[in-house]
Amino acid sequence: MNKKKGNLYIVTGPSGAGKGTVLGRVLAEMDNVFLSVSATTRQPREGEKHGVNYYFVTHDEFRQMIEQDRLLEHAEYVGNFYGTPAAPVDEMLNAGKDVVLEIEVQGALIVKGKRPDATLIFIVPPSFDVLASRLRSRGTESEEVVQRRLMKARSECAQMDAYDYIVINDQLDDAVHDLSSIIRAGRCRRGSVALNLFD
Amino acid sequence: MNKKKGNLYIVTGPSGAGKGTVLGRVLAEMDNVFLSVSATTRQPREGEKHGVNYYFVTHDEFRQMIEQDRLLEHAEYVGNFYGTPAAPVDEMLNAGKDVVLEIEVQGALIVKGKRPDATLIFIVPPSFDVLASRLRSRGTESEEVVQRRLMKARSECAQMDAYDYIVINDQLDDAVHDLSSIIRAGRCRRGSVALNLFD
Repeated sequence: MNKKKGNLYIVTGPSGAGKGTVLGRVLAEMDNVFLSVSATTRQPREGEKHGVNYYFVTHDEFRQMIEQDRLLEHAEYVGNFYGTPAAPVDEMLNAGKDVVLEIEVQGALIVKGKRPDATLIFIVPPSFDVLASRLRSRGTESEEVVQRRLMKARSECAQMDAYDYIVINDQLDDAVHDLSSIIRAGRCRRGSVALNLFD
Repeated sequence: MNKKKGNLYIVTGPSGAGKGTVLGRVLAEMDNVFLSVSATTRQPREGEKHGVNYYFVTHDEFRQMIEQDRLLEHAEYVGNFYGTPAAPVDEMLNAGKDVVLEIEVQGALIVKGKRPDATLIFIVPPSFDVLASRLRSRGTESEEVVQRRLMKARSECAQMDAYDYIVINDQLDDAVHDLSSIIRAGRCRRGSVALNLFD
């Protein structure tokens, strides 16, 4: 069996849907699937390593990456820039590895535009009511912030129809099983299978 | 969550690839996925039940089913007819069940023509050499029969490019996991998910 290119997955969903938790479990349990590393202009926090947690770059370097079209997507968040460098993603895909981008909803469709082969996965809570109680149970945010996040979630979920797969994060184990099944099934897609029956 | 229609899967592959074994394990392990029951003109064998193993029908009844376009596909095999009645399949799909047709390679593309939504899955041995040793190890067939089956398998595998998924049955456990992942992922496809976030 020859090595084929890996598959590219874009995982997104509203804040509070638990996409980080679901994805963390899947990446820990599955072989040969890796999270892409983002570039950012923000300062490294204690313990964060360049090339592992983020590629830490200057504003100038980041602007250059944008100008040279070396980012699959980028966004500004509280004064700092975050983006997905294309080169390391392609390197992994060419080595036959599956790659997952965990990005914001706004970036997902931009990447899909540049990489039509990418599989879009939307992780949602079972309902906005559940999302609301999850956000409130964190106990860290004021009701005003919770309401603002809920409004944003509603707007993000309106884009759900553009996605290939919807994973409902009701029971965590089920959502993990769903996401790993999507990635495993992707390896069986005709175009992903390198098979020479005469080997 | 409202109930949506189930998904239709067509599982095929050359004789000796082990599709019956893989499928049997998946059907035993997974909920809400069912094998379609074929109609046949052959006599019931001891213990076989009408509507469970087969729908046992007369030649006249079978001809009528063909004329009234009530079969998704049919084929003759050693003087008897076998076919897949459409109605019970649609009944299960409409009830939200996933349905698997286990049919010969020749019938698979015919069903796909009638049901473009169906997902085509091809189960293959890892190589023709492995297939040859599997066929020989049965010890029930002459070398001439083995050679004829190998020739047929080569011709059937030439159609592999028309399939959505390829499952390589090298290690049985892996093939079972692959097939169940494909079916589970299918339930997360956008069109298969009935989600009302305002519930």
